[in-house]
Amino acid sequence: MAALDKVLEQIDTNLEAALGRLCKLVEIPSVSTDPAYAGGCKQAAEWMAAELRSIGFDASVRETSGHPMVVGNAKAARPDVPHLLFYGHYDVQPPDPLDLWESPPFEPRIVETEAGKRITGRGVADDKGQLMTFVEACRAFHETGGLPCHITFLIEGEEETSSPSLPDFLDKTKDELKADMALVCDTLMWDRETPAVTAMLRGLVLEEVVIHAADRDLHSGMFGGAAINPIHVLARIIAGLHDEQGRITLPGFYDGVRELPDDVASQWRELPFDESAFLGQVGLTIPAGEEGRSVLEMIWSRPTCDINGIFGGYTGKGSKTVLPAQASAKFSFRLVGSQDPRKIVQSFRAFVKERLPADCGAEFVSHGASSALQLPFSSEALSRASRALQAEWGKEPVVAGCGGSIPIVGAFKRDLGMDTLMIGFGLEDDRVHSPNEKYELSSFHKGARSWARVLNALAL
Amino acid sequence: MAALDKVLEQIDTNLEAALGRLCKLVEIPSVSTDPAYAGGCKQAAEWMAAELRSIGFDASVRETSGHPMVVGNAKAARPDVPHLLFYGHYDVQPPDPLDLWESPPFEPRIVETEAGKRITGRGVADDKGQLMTFVEACRAFHETGGLPCHITFLIEGEEETSSPSLPDFLDKTKDELKADMALVCDTLMWDRETPAVTAMLRGLVLEEVVIHAADRDLHSGMFGGAAINPIHVLARIIAGLHDEQGRITLPGFYDGVRELPDDVASQWRELPFDESAFLGQVGLTIPAGEEGRSVLEMIWSRPTCDINGIFGGYTGKGSKTVLPAQASAKFSFRLVGSQDPRKIVQSFRAFVKERLPADCGAEFVSHGASSALQLPFSSEALSRASRALQAEWGKEPVVAGCGGSIPIVGAFKRDLGMDTLMIGFGLEDDRVHSPNEKYELSSFHKGARSWARVLNALAL
Repeated sequence: MAALDKVLEQIDTNLEAALGRLCKLVEIPSVSTDPAYAGGCKQAAEWMAAELRSIGFDASVRETSGHPMVVGNAKAARPDVPHLLFYGHYDVQPPDPLDLWESPPFEPRIVETEAGKRITGRGVADDKGQLMTFVEACRAFHETGGLPCHITFLIEGEEETSSPSLPDFLDKTKDELKADMALVCDTLMWDRETPAVTAMLRGLVLEEVVIHAADRDLHSGMFGGAAINPIHVLARIIAGLHDEQGRITLPGFYDGVRELPDDVASQWRELPFDESAFLGQVGLTIPAGEEGRSVLEMIWSRPTCDINGIFGGYTGKGSKTVLPAQASAKFSFRLVGSQDPRKIVQSFRAFVKERLPADCGAEFVSHGASSALQLPFSSEALSRASRALQAEWGKEPVVAGCGGSIPIVGAFKRDLGMDTLMIGFGLEDDRVHSPNEKYELSSFHKGARSWARVLNALAL
Repeated sequence: MAALDKVLEQIDTNLEAALGRLCKLVEIPSVSTDPAYAGGCKQAAEWMAAELRSIGFDASVRETSGHPMVVGNAKAARPDVPHLLFYGHYDVQPPDPLDLWESPPFEPRIVETEAGKRITGRGVADDKGQLMTFVEACRAFHETGGLPCHITFLIEGEEETSSPSLPDFLDKTKDELKADMALVCDTLMWDRETPAVTAMLRGLVLEEVVIHAADRDLHSGMFGGAAINPIHVLARIIAGLHDEQGRITLPGFYDGVRELPDDVASQWRELPFDESAFLGQVGLTIPAGEEGRSVLEMIWSRPTCDINGIFGGYTGKGSKTVLPAQASAKFSFRLVGSQDPRKIVQSFRAFVKERLPADCGAEFVSHGASSALQLPFSSEALSRASRALQAEWGKEPVVAGCGGSIPIVGAFKRDLGMDTLMIGFGLEDDRVHSPNEKYELSSFHKGARSWARVLNALAL
């Protein structure tokens, strides 16, 4: 029996135990954005380090000014093999609204469906289940003769909050982390049967704005009509951010946004992508982005401006005739190509300030900013990984774009000079960031097998 | 000595005793919103009924499903005089925060200040002191030869909780309460020396809108750019509700909005109203309403559209890259003249629906709708009351508007077909609803004398 076959068999044999380990991790409420869950983040980091030590890694929890990192190293049996850095994150999104969950978000369940088994719980897809596919592949190598490549793990706990502690940590730890290539498992398959390698990632700028007007909440009977209302001001700013064609109106916003090369554009046009089904799965029918763009372009290769939250005044039951003193909104910009996050922030803040009436002030809070990323289509690693995935799934993987951001991939490129191979086994209907998040058992099981094949291929 | 002079002299002579009675009433903790004070409300109602019986009224406490009402009737000596319904309320706001009171809220004190004596205590201005000005005027008539008009008292105990029992009670008691005109003493003077008759009350339409888009919250990385964002939709609707001149753009919105008569417009122009001071007290400098209107017009005689609250998406700490499934806002419209609340609601809902993209739905919740109220500027009662006030204060009373609503006045008009004459002696600095509420002795004393003169004038 060839070494790879033993590894694959080991993964198959130990699937139940692997599922148990994943459930343990999902039970830890590691919500990074809410300080109330700081203990959960610490616990998840410690759990991950112990897990890596149990499969032969020299692993430890590393403190930061935010949530801790986990770093682990292990050598391959042979010295002359590539050194790979695997990155994942143990932190998860907040579970709210809690009342929409069919079972508690931090009590993972194995659920039988017509399409097979799935695991439910906050973070089970993003990124705990995905991360554990790689850990389980390493475990199988460890238990059957050793790793095929030198591997370093970097597992952080602030991915969902734009990784504020990461730049400093990378800077301090770069000699330990620098490898030949990075691997990330935080992306989607094309569909349930078709794997994908993600070659483009959008960047992300996160800005929060608070508009201030009067120095206190006012009675709308006494002041209504005469006092400026910050909700009005904020609404006018938001309404002005897009033109009638869905283009973003910030000056200079499209600097660095390029059209796709012809061959990629043509590949995407030929993909069996059902726009109606994509939107229909969430109850929508009409693409809401720039006129004249396909949905795939809108979500993979075009920049966006969105409002993720808005709040002001009285929002309880019934009514309250109040003119609030302030109103706030959280904005996110998805970036592509070589759009410069700093310039986008500047342009946005100037746009808001120019639209402030004299009696209003604006307060800005940055929640992070990262550039878009592109993996060269012609790289050797990409073609080896593609062949490995084809062997596991029996279908050629799609070379895809990704609408979301994985800021670390930008940092790896910029600070450590590494490209990143992004292979993930999530599905579009995994309800990532929503109630009732799930991860398919097939994703988990064949995901671990896929990584075994990819590691094997990269070592050859 | 003319009859009126005797009445005024009687008020002057008995001022100390009248103050004692007011203090007794303020000592009763009749907080209507807090069930713990239900006994205080009952006690206040019984005290009021006994007080009215002591001055010749056939008065009784009437039970409701909430706090009781007090109704009292007394005939004038002459039969051919008007029948007046006086409305007041014995209930008060909660006194908290207690630690900000300089003396206990239910232990009224007479305090000497540079501007004269004042009485402190919860409810002393709103509405116990104001209510007692009218009672003391009736007492003086009773003690000097009888009332000049037939008078019915309606004193409720739920004004501070939006009068839930009142509609039913009015319906059951309307034959007893129906009079030629209603009188209310729950409004302000123009300033310490200048009386006011409030002739205009703005109406109020309260609408809540929920905009629905996708059937769940979405990840903005996965769907951003392609999925419609209900916060965008709501912001565009809000932004479109006013034009650049601050006028409200709802079709038909200004139907029934009339310009002030020349004499009132000219009186308002000449009033020493300091717009900068009015806005400056809350940290603002620039009137935010319709271009070309004074602040007094904006808050007294012009209609408004305001957003009292807005909510959507993630509003906790940090960021969450979510496209929310829904966004909501609470709107209030202050109405004037003969604007029809039902038409405003229809126009608003049509406006929202017309601006909904095909994939969005809107859900509307009404939180109430009431017309504006206008005492005709040319009415005989208004001119008689104005002359009576001028005789007492030596200054022409301001014919004022009021930006807020007094729902009972609408009910009197709608259900009993009566106009209401609103004369009050409160001052802007009375700290109504706040700690250290006070009522000036001059308001109390000259208030009672004013009512004596007004009753006398209305009887002639």
